[in-house]
Formats: sequence, structure tokens, C-alpha cells
Amino acid sequence: MTRKRMIGVMGPGLSATSRDLENAYALGMLIAQAQWGLLTGGRNVGVMAAANRGAKEAGGLTVGVLPSAEPRSVSEFVDVVICTDLGNGRNNINVLSSDVVIACGMGLGTASEVALALKNGKSVVLLTEMKESHGFFRQLAPHQVLIVHSVQDAIATVQTLI
Amino acid sequence: MTRKRMIGVMGPGLSATSRDLENAYALGMLIAQAQWGLLTGGRNVGVMAAANRGAKEAGGLTVGVLPSAEPRSVSEFVDVVICTDLGNGRNNINVLSSDVVIACGMGLGTASEVALALKNGKSVVLLTEMKESHGFFRQLAPHQVLIVHSVQDAIATVQTLI
Amino acid sequence: MTRKRMIGVMGPGLSATSRDLENAYALGMLIAQAQWGLLTGGRNVGVMAAANRGAKEAGGLTVGVLPSAEPRSVSEFVDVVICTDLGNGRNNINVLSSDVVIACGMGLGTASEVALALKNGKSVVLLTEMKESHGFFRQLAPHQVLIVHSVQDAIATVQTLI
Amino acid sequence: MTRKRMIGVMGPGLSATSRDLENAYALGMLIAQAQWGLLTGGRNVGVMAAANRGAKEAGGLTVGVLPSAEPRSVSEFVDVVICTDLGNGRNNINVLSSDVVIACGMGLGTASEVALALKNGKSVVLLTEMKESHGFFRQLAPHQVLIVHSVQDAIATVQTLI
Repeated sequence: MTRKRMIGVMGPGLSATSRDLENAYALGMLIAQAQWGLLTGGRNVGVMAAANRGAKEAGGLTVGVLPSAEPRSVSEFVDVVICTDLGNGRNNINVLSSDVVIACGMGLGTASEVALALKNGKSVVLLTEMKESHGFFRQLAPHQVLIVHSVQDAIATVQTLI
Repeated sequence: MTRKRMIGVMGPGLSATSRDLENAYALGMLIAQAQWGLLTGGRNVGVMAAANRGAKEAGGLTVGVLPSAEPRSVSEFVDVVICTDLGNGRNNINVLSSDVVIACGMGLGTASEVALALKNGKSVVLLTEMKESHGFFRQLAPHQVLIVHSVQDAIATVQTLI
Repeated sequence: MTRKRMIGVMGPGLSATSRDLENAYALGMLIAQAQWGLLTGGRNVGVMAAANRGAKEAGGLTVGVLPSAEPRSVSEFVDVVICTDLGNGRNNINVLSSDVVIACGMGLGTASEVALALKNGKSVVLLTEMKESHGFFRQLAPHQVLIVHSVQDAIATVQTLI
Repeated sequence: MTRKRMIGVMGPGLSATSRDLENAYALGMLIAQAQWGLLTGGRNVGVMAAANRGAKEAGGLTVGVLPSAEPRSVSEFVDVVICTDLGNGRNNINVLSSDVVIACGMGLGTASEVALALKNGKSVVLLTEMKESHGFFRQLAPHQVLIVHSVQDAIATVQTLI
């Protein structure tokens, strides 16, 4: 079996904070160093772009699942581009194709991905300062939501899940 | 133009509370009386089933967008069945096909639908006692989330939006 | 059970011939007169537009499953608009949501719909002068493809299938 | 730019002929040797399985886009698994994510993929003995369909397109 374990890093695009971007870059790097593949929404912006850059700088394999029909908007650090033409409907594919999902920051797209991941029975590692998201998702799926406060904790948590 | 205005009622299946079911039934009835169409996730369970029953008892038009490839699981009160074979990916179609979305109760599927509706620029009327959801979605999309406390308020709010 | 039987009419948009358009209009009318619902790809062009016009002139119920995220491109003769944001991926939903599929004319989108309908185990009524399509689909699915030469034959064939 | 060129090999599952399987295996090998990635429908059967085996034996990168929500049915020779939960709706993603599509053999799923590829403006290399498919697709899209009679011709044709 040649299948690569894939870790999904989901987070805001244009509305990402500088903290989110630092975390995403570090997560990408650590995921690559752990020999896992990185899966993101693929676009050349925000958490997606930062995570892919981190993973490629560490020599990792990167997969980007785009909302569009063609690859124009893809991050230059993505190896394998999946063009879905599903718009936000591709968010379900992002989480189904990830062995574990890490939410890095929070936004509307990220919220949909966390909810879909949990609905599909996946564990989600939540790395965000937005307190309201902790209570919200914890109440909806207490055993699948793992709240962490650093990229190191996020990676250590993924290790226990995979 | 013959197009029917469609109001989406989204809510839990098996985990719906008895309050959710009462609200869903009343919403279906009031939506039909307002001459709008009702759109739900179509399954014969929970908020979906109750809303469709209410709408049909008031002589309305009901549309069910199923996750499955065939109509076996559909509520008996659905007129038009859309079989998507998209699993939870159909949640994005539910909200895109609704002029306004009402969340009646809260669960993981519902949370994904609220997030996707907001992400797609739609207004969402939130009718749920789960306080954590108010703060969470209000912070992510302050101007698109409308919190109500009764089915009458929900319908009155839809009237202002349509 | 309130569910409406839905007949899908699939055919070319801009490349429809005048014969295709006449057939589509007549099919829409006869489908409505038979008390079935009409399901099409919904756009305001070609076979889709003509079939919807025919069905509405006969007082039928029309459902349009659009490739786009919003209803701007819909035929004015569609009652229920489903916005998928799936691009050509919505073709699979068109055929899954139809009890029987009628191909009225032939084009690339129509060819994909016929193939997907057959793949999903549906019967397809083929009303097109393009001879190459008869041999092609007959060889791939001999028992599911029903070749007809008039709208009356098409409707009579649907009657035997439903 | 790190993006891998992806060549899609589409063909029948259980109904593949022994000739199709030999061709698929050889195509996988030659695609890997050309330093392209291989993209297939991912399942552990027919043309998909044979192409992935060929590509991995030549040290290539393989991507499988599954119809299911989880990876149980995947070929053991797939590196990157995309779980779509879209059923046959995933066929559109297969072709959108391929720089060039090679049809290796013919079946209902393959026919839908060829039609969708052409509809989306892609070139398709047709490697099948089923004569009816040549005339059918050539008439629908004369400039996008490239008929070949050997795997060597198929690869040479891809070279001119990429």
C-alpha cells in the first residue's frame, strides 16, 4: 500500500490574521517533516498559500483541491491540483480526503469544513483564538473536537490520531 | 416569470428536539400560506419531515434535495425530489437554491448549511435555543445572521428579506 | 405519497436544430398533459427553454437544475430552480432526478447525460437524427436505450416505462 | 511553479478487455517515465488498477479520484486518494483535473468522461477498438478528438498537446 497519509489544513483566505499565517506556514513544514502529505483548498491566498509554502520548503507533497474548473488560482506551492468546479461544494471533498483535519484560524468556509468533517465522522484539531468556535463545536461533537493552542500541540495531537 | 420563491428550512434529523419539530411543522405551514415554496434536505426524519408535513397540510409546494442517488429515503410530503448522490455535499445546493435559509434547531449538518449559506452571501434566520450558535455565527457574519425566537418572528423576518 | 413523476428532457443549448426545438416544445406540452413534471438543465436557451415553454403553456410543473450558483440564466418558464454551482457536474443530478430521461437532439452535454443516465441504471429514450449516437449507445447498453422517431413515440415509450 | 502535469487515463472497470488492461498498464508506465503524474478514477479494478500498477512500477506519482466517501475501494498503487462522495458525479472532476485525457477502452463511465472532457474544452486521446465511438465523438467535437491505435501513438499525441 503506497497511499500517503494526508493532513488537511483548512483556514481563511483573505481574512487570515498574521498569527494564522505563521501557524499555517509552520504546520505545513511540520506536516512535511512527519512524512505526511498536505491537503488544502489550494488557492493562492491566506492559510492555504502559507501552509503549502511551508510544506514545499520542507520537501513535502502538497495537494490543492480548487473550487474552480481550471488551475489559474492555485498556489505556486501545490504539486497536485484537483480542479472540481464545485465552488464551496468542494469543501466536503477537502475534509473527506484528509485523514485528519486541522482548522487553522476561523472563517465561514473554515466553519463549513469543520462542520462537514465532524458530520462525516472525522476528528478535527482546532487551532484558533476565536473562543466562540471552541464552545460551539465542542457542544455539537464533544469527542471529535480537539482544541490546541500551538502548532506543536496540533502536530502532537495528529500523531495520536493517525 | 413563473419562478417560485423558495424558503429553505434546515435542521437536525434524528437529533431534532420536540421543540424543533413543532417549529418546523409550523414553519412549513406558514411558508405555504405565504405562497412560497419549501425547500429542505428531503429526508423522512426530523425537521425535514416535519416542515414538509406542515407545508403539504397547508397545500404548499415542497422540494426535497436528497443526499442519495435514489428517492427511497424521501419524506412522503415532498412533491419534487432532487436526487444528488452528493452525500453531505448536497448541503451547498440546499442553501444556493433557497432565497432565504431558516435554521430550525442546530446540528452538524445544519451548522454546515448555515456556514455555507453565509459564505455564499445569503441571509440566515436562526431559530434555535443553542446560545453558542448565536455568538459564533454573529461574529463570523454580523449583518447576515438574524436571530429570532419564534416561528412568527422567523416568517416576519423572511418577509423583510424577500 | 405526493411525489411527482419527473421526466427529464435533455438536449443541446445553442447548437439545437430547429427540429430539436420543435420536438422539445411538443415534448414539454405532452409531458404536462400527462400530469408528469418536466425536469431540464434549466438554462434559457435551446432544448431546455423550448421544453419549459411547452410545459408551462400546458399548465405543467417545471424544474430547472442550473449549473450556476444563482438563477440569473434560468428560463422564464421554470417554476422550481435548483442552483447547484456544479458546472457540468450537475448533469449527473439531472438524470438521477428524472424517472425517465428523453434525449432530444445530441451534443456534448447531452452525450454526457445519456451516458450518466445509463451508467446509473436508467432507461433513456433517444429522439435524435444523429445516427452515430444510436449505434454508440445501443452497443454500450442495449436494453436501456430506446430509439424513437417522433415525440408521440417518445411519450408512448415513457408510458411503458413509468 | 511546482505543479505536476497530470495525464488522466479513463477506462472501464469490470468490463475492461484484456487488451484494455495491457494498454492501461503500458500507458501508466510510459506516463511515469515521461515524468507526468497519472490521474484515474482510483478504484481497484480494470483500467484504473492496471494503469496505476504500471505507473508505480516505473516510480511515478499516482492520484485516484474515488466516487466514495472513504478510501476502502482504492487501488493499492495510488499515492494520493481524493474521496469525493459524488458517485458518478466525480467523473467531471477526473477530466477537469487532467491536462490531457486518454480514453483506454470504452464503457458507460468512460463515455461520460469523454463527453465531459470535450464539453469542458479538453482534448481527448481515444485508444479503443470500439469503432462506433470514433464516429460518434469525432462528429461531436472534430478538433478535440484524437484517435490512436497504440499506446506509443497515445503518448506521442499527448506530447504534442502538453
